[in-house]
Amino acid sequence: MGECERMNVAKFGGSSLADAGQIKKVASIITADTDRKIIVVSAPGKRSDEDTKVTDLLIHLGETALAGKDTADALQNVVERFRSITEELGLSEDMLRIIEKDLQERVDYTKESPERFLDQMKAAGEDNNAKVIAGYLQSQGVLSEYINPAEAGLYVSDTPGNAQVLPESYDNLYKLRERKGILIFPGFFGYSKEGKLVTFSRGGSDITGSIVAAGIKADLYENFTDVDSVFAANPKVVKDPVAIKRMTYREMRELSYAGFAVFHDEALIPAFQKSIPVCVKNTNNPKTSGTMIISEREYALNPVIGIAADKGFSTLYVRKYLMNREVGFGRRLLSIIEDEGISYEHIPSGIDDTSVILDNSQLTPAAEEKIISRITEELEADDVYFEKGLAMIMLVGEGMHETVGIAARATKALMEKEINIEMINQGSSEVSLAFGIKEEQVDDAIRGLYEEFFSTKEVLQ
Amino acid sequence: MGECERMNVAKFGGSSLADAGQIKKVASIITADTDRKIIVVSAPGKRSDEDTKVTDLLIHLGETALAGKDTADALQNVVERFRSITEELGLSEDMLRIIEKDLQERVDYTKESPERFLDQMKAAGEDNNAKVIAGYLQSQGVLSEYINPAEAGLYVSDTPGNAQVLPESYDNLYKLRERKGILIFPGFFGYSKEGKLVTFSRGGSDITGSIVAAGIKADLYENFTDVDSVFAANPKVVKDPVAIKRMTYREMRELSYAGFAVFHDEALIPAFQKSIPVCVKNTNNPKTSGTMIISEREYALNPVIGIAADKGFSTLYVRKYLMNREVGFGRRLLSIIEDEGISYEHIPSGIDDTSVILDNSQLTPAAEEKIISRITEELEADDVYFEKGLAMIMLVGEGMHETVGIAARATKALMEKEINIEMINQGSSEVSLAFGIKEEQVDDAIRGLYEEFFSTKEVLQ
Repeated sequence: MGECERMNVAKFGGSSLADAGQIKKVASIITADTDRKIIVVSAPGKRSDEDTKVTDLLIHLGETALAGKDTADALQNVVERFRSITEELGLSEDMLRIIEKDLQERVDYTKESPERFLDQMKAAGEDNNAKVIAGYLQSQGVLSEYINPAEAGLYVSDTPGNAQVLPESYDNLYKLRERKGILIFPGFFGYSKEGKLVTFSRGGSDITGSIVAAGIKADLYENFTDVDSVFAANPKVVKDPVAIKRMTYREMRELSYAGFAVFHDEALIPAFQKSIPVCVKNTNNPKTSGTMIISEREYALNPVIGIAADKGFSTLYVRKYLMNREVGFGRRLLSIIEDEGISYEHIPSGIDDTSVILDNSQLTPAAEEKIISRITEELEADDVYFEKGLAMIMLVGEGMHETVGIAARATKALMEKEINIEMINQGSSEVSLAFGIKEEQVDDAIRGLYEEFFSTKEVLQ
Repeated sequence: MGECERMNVAKFGGSSLADAGQIKKVASIITADTDRKIIVVSAPGKRSDEDTKVTDLLIHLGETALAGKDTADALQNVVERFRSITEELGLSEDMLRIIEKDLQERVDYTKESPERFLDQMKAAGEDNNAKVIAGYLQSQGVLSEYINPAEAGLYVSDTPGNAQVLPESYDNLYKLRERKGILIFPGFFGYSKEGKLVTFSRGGSDITGSIVAAGIKADLYENFTDVDSVFAANPKVVKDPVAIKRMTYREMRELSYAGFAVFHDEALIPAFQKSIPVCVKNTNNPKTSGTMIISEREYALNPVIGIAADKGFSTLYVRKYLMNREVGFGRRLLSIIEDEGISYEHIPSGIDDTSVILDNSQLTPAAEEKIISRITEELEADDVYFEKGLAMIMLVGEGMHETVGIAARATKALMEKEINIEMINQGSSEVSLAFGIKEEQVDDAIRGLYEEFFSTKEVLQ
């Protein structure tokens, strides 16, 4: 390798690899830039809205096997899905026989631990797709090879469905820099120190990509998906929102929190920790520059970078006279919530009252009832109730904290849309300002804030 | 008593009763309104800035006695102070002999418990002043008498210096309605069930007044002090601020929190709980209507009623990646703070960080160091530090919650004064909106908010 050569890791998601046509696109992207050295791949995803992902076919196959039923049809469904790919890619029958044999071995794997059995079954999608893509690149005369995570030294905790990378993996992966040609690396799983296959949680291929990029100390981690970039606001609410060209990890994390699910932000932590620049790009439109996610950005001109919003929050309101004199009140209140396994979002507090903002998905009528009765009895509160229908809207940007007047502009924009602010939370995060508003006003609020900070143009009504 | 007659309780503070001239003023106030039936009085306060309060003379007397020193001079100082009052009021030497005998009995009281000894000594100021005032009213032909708290049934917990009223006191006090004439009730103390004298904490006479008003179910509790009313902002910062005519208990409580120490707000709790209207008036200007504090007010025209501010806060900043996924993080953080006996003011939170706003008076370098090291070690935080120099400024008003645009007007006012908002807390209290700003900008912030919400006139610079 020459000194000027760069080493990039590119990750392609399931929709980018759903069929032979998509895989050909991906191959041309890979070969278009000689810096792309390690390619992390997902299993083939949906070809249309009605289609089934290969991973879901594999889960069905695994469950059939666990139920002790005949697996022939379910296995053949997976094989046929791969056949439609390999044939169109012009690969030999050998490839398909390798896949079929692999699937049969997985079906025959010990069912002592059903969890572990399903883990190794689900991983077949990524694993075989990596072999197909390596084979196709070879057939096109490109120096490339499939690499197994065990061979690469990607070791993880022995926690099926929720693998955590072990620290030594990074040094092991660094050695991949010595390999010649393009390596095709299956996403979604690693191996325990005892050699057991273990999958990551959701966003699994993103996690692998991020770990590999961190391990080899990539110059760039390209995350190919099906959108051109991250936008300053939800395109379903704001017409043609501004594309974000550069944003920081912190901004991405705050935006991901509410409604910016371009990818699972926690997957990027390994890359963030090693300060690897991440680029979000579109497989179907690789010429657009996408969104770069970096450690720091110049923010003097645009202190605010995006607006995120999410519905489905509740307020737990607690009032008790002289609450603020009671050392331990807040802690005991949070203990009661914690006892129900519930985490909180924000805790705006008054003098004699406090509210806890909670995600509805964590609440059940039983938990609510228990929380109310415990707060009433144990904390002797004067008033306790839940209020539903809260949306959180966040203004995100590195420059917000240092720029006088952001809160004034934001609250004015909301006022002009006649939106009553139920909650404001500013003060800890230096990169966000959060408002609580009524759910039915959230789209109006996004438009109002977008107009104020990004555009003087009319927005979608 | 006729059916149309009302029954009011009036309380006069130490500066209202500092000398004979003041007591004459008070007597004319008492007799000017036949509804004023029970008068709660403090000990004579300072006549000038250099003067000593009678209570402080009594503490000196008590400490001299406890030290086993000769008490003659210290006792005579108190007697002489009362002499200057009784002589100018034209009362006989009998009154002074009663006072002197009372003081000598207190000096001779058992010193087994120094705390309890000091309690009964301190209470001599209110007790004897009540006798003086009753005597003066009688000398003026007014039907009136001194009433001892024990006789009135004002029973309290046996906790010297920190008496808590016992519930049966209210029913006992209600019976005072049957008494003829004006009752002069000494503030600041009650009696335990065993008959021991016990004083209240600071604001003691205010507490007595509030308890008596609640007990007799007064139509009005008048709290006479030395200001015309509660103002919408600190007159030391804003020139001629608007007087607040009517405010709710909740508003008073929020305003008292920071910088509105007209009286000790907690003292009013007994009156609040029985929904007794409270009127703050000026002894030296009784014709002005003062400030009425009631349960509810009409707020459509003035949603914001006042601005309070206080310096001396710190921010404890804690950052940890993925904090918001960790159930129990906030609770454990508050436990660590609670272990140092510290209560918090607000907890603004981000996604990966949280801040805790604390009152500096609770912090010591040792406590700060311990908190930082425990958070670092036990919570494995990525970053923890204290930041000093924070001021809290609060906009208070019952109508704020329902009025669109209050936050916009407030933040715009701060922006125009070039004030960077460090923290905003809105969302729990329905009657306040709190901002954290740098201490050095607090006066500018008060003026900016005052201009926006109360005035178009120029304010003091």
